[in-house]
This record gives sequence, C-alpha cells and structure tokens, in this order.
Amino acid sequence: MFRKILYPTDFSDCAVKALDYVKKLKEAETEEVVVVHVMDVREIETMLIGTAWVKETTAEYEADLLKAMRDDVEKKLEEVKTEIEKAGLKVSVKIPEGIPFKKILKIAEDEDISLIVLGSHGKSNVREMLLGSVSEKVIRGSKRPVLLVKRDTA
Amino acid sequence: MFRKILYPTDFSDCAVKALDYVKKLKEAETEEVVVVHVMDVREIETMLIGTAWVKETTAEYEADLLKAMRDDVEKKLEEVKTEIEKAGLKVSVKIPEGIPFKKILKIAEDEDISLIVLGSHGKSNVREMLLGSVSEKVIRGSKRPVLLVKRDTA
Repeated sequence: MFRKILYPTDFSDCAVKALDYVKKLKEAETEEVVVVHVMDVREIETMLIGTAWVKETTAEYEADLLKAMRDDVEKKLEEVKTEIEKAGLKVSVKIPEGIPFKKILKIAEDEDISLIVLGSHGKSNVREMLLGSVSEKVIRGSKRPVLLVKRDTA
Repeated sequence: MFRKILYPTDFSDCAVKALDYVKKLKEAETEEVVVVHVMDVREIETMLIGTAWVKETTAEYEADLLKAMRDDVEKKLEEVKTEIEKAGLKVSVKIPEGIPFKKILKIAEDEDISLIVLGSHGKSNVREMLLGSVSEKVIRGSKRPVLLVKRDTA
C-alpha cells in the first residue's frame, strides 16, 4: 500500500517537511523511494533570455549554464538520497527536463508508484496561495494516492 | 506524525477505499481515529422541499424523516467503527450537521488531528470530475497533511 513512494522535490521548505513523512512510512512497509527533481524547461528558457540581455549568449555559454544548474541539482539530490538511505530505504534519483507536473505524473505511472508524497507549495509560490500550482495539477491528474504535506503543518 | 487520523466518510466507494489506508497506518504509529460523517444541511433542506411536493409536511413528519436519516448513518458508522477497532485502533465517531468541508476542517483543528485521510470523490460527484468538490475544499483549507485516495487507485 505504501511500498514504493514517489517524492518530487524542488528543495523548498515544504518539500523538506514532506521528506519526514517519507522516512516515517518505512514503518508501514515502504521499501523504495524514487526522488525526482524536474528541471523546468520554461524556467531555463526564461533564464537564458535574461542572460541574453547582459551578455551575448553562445551555444557554448548556454551549455555551460545548464551544466552548472544540473550539477547543483545533482549535489542537492545526493544529500537527499543519503538522508533517505540512512532511514533504511532503497533510493533512486531522477532529473528529467520538462513541465514538472507532467513529468511527475508520467513517472508515477511508469514506475508503478504506490504513493506520491508532495509538499503543498513549491519555491515559486506566493505566500497567499492555498495550494501551489504544481501540487494542484499533480493531485488532480494523479491516479495514485497523494499525501500532501501542507506549508502550515506544525 | 500519524498519531491521530481524521477519517471523513460519506460511505462512497472512494471513502471505503480510503479506510484501508487508515488501518494500514497503524504500523506507522497511528493510535486513534476520529470518524466523521457530516449531515449536509443543504441536502436535508432539498429533500424536505422534495417531499413537500408529494405530501403536506408537518414539523413532526420532518423530525421523523431526520431521525430516520440519522439512524441510518449511525448504523453505518457503527460498522466502520467496529472495523477500525478490529485493526487495533481507538475510535470516536461524530455526526455533525452542517456544510461538510467546513465541519471537517473545524474538527481537524479542534481535535488537533495529525492527518486527514480522504477519498477524492464523494457520492454525488460525476464520473468526469478529476477531484470532488468537498475533497478539493478540504485540501485547500486544511492546515494538516492530507492523504488523498484517488478513485482510480488500483
């Protein structure tokens, strides 16, 4: 019922909070965790347009920038992986490029996930929103159960 | 983290499915379950208007009808209670009258609930909806984590 968890993270406070729930579920027979960080193609595009204003970009420059971003994500995910492994769970890590909610839903199906554990708000969500847009789309589109960890949870 | 669960039910298929998750969470230290069925005041009103068409209603008739509805709910909740107790959990039952999502959110706060376990679709939701309206409002308004069990979950 909780055997294989999908844990999407954008390294926001809320995602960090959700990680505690992932680890706790080991007691309810969770064996395996798939950690996912989606590199948002729309953000990358916007950033490249931004840098084009201050600097003439070349294909080489763009590739360097993307590599630096990916290196940063890999480093952070390595820490998450170590933390989950310490809790006694098997971990795999994925860093797809795409639209976050679409990639998350696709991986949930492809990997035959038992449960998605998700923070309610990502990094880019404003304080006032009751529910972040990625979380909302994952909840609506998911065929799998979703454990939603709210920002306000004590 | 999962100590005290709020389990709202309208006795729909999806709510029944969610109950399996409630019982399983005992392994992750759930001790206590608050089972709630909200008597929807708007439905009661609609029903009374409906019966007024075929029969002149009296205060006594209305009271009898409400009593019959409540008896039916109590009987069903007794079965749910027995099932959860068999799983080794402490159970309390509540049958408030009101607007379902509001009552659910209020009880979650009043009872200092650790987790709400919720079916994604209630009895009145049409097949095509991705998320039932009560579930959506609970998810948005909750300060507590929510485990949402989807209709399509295998």
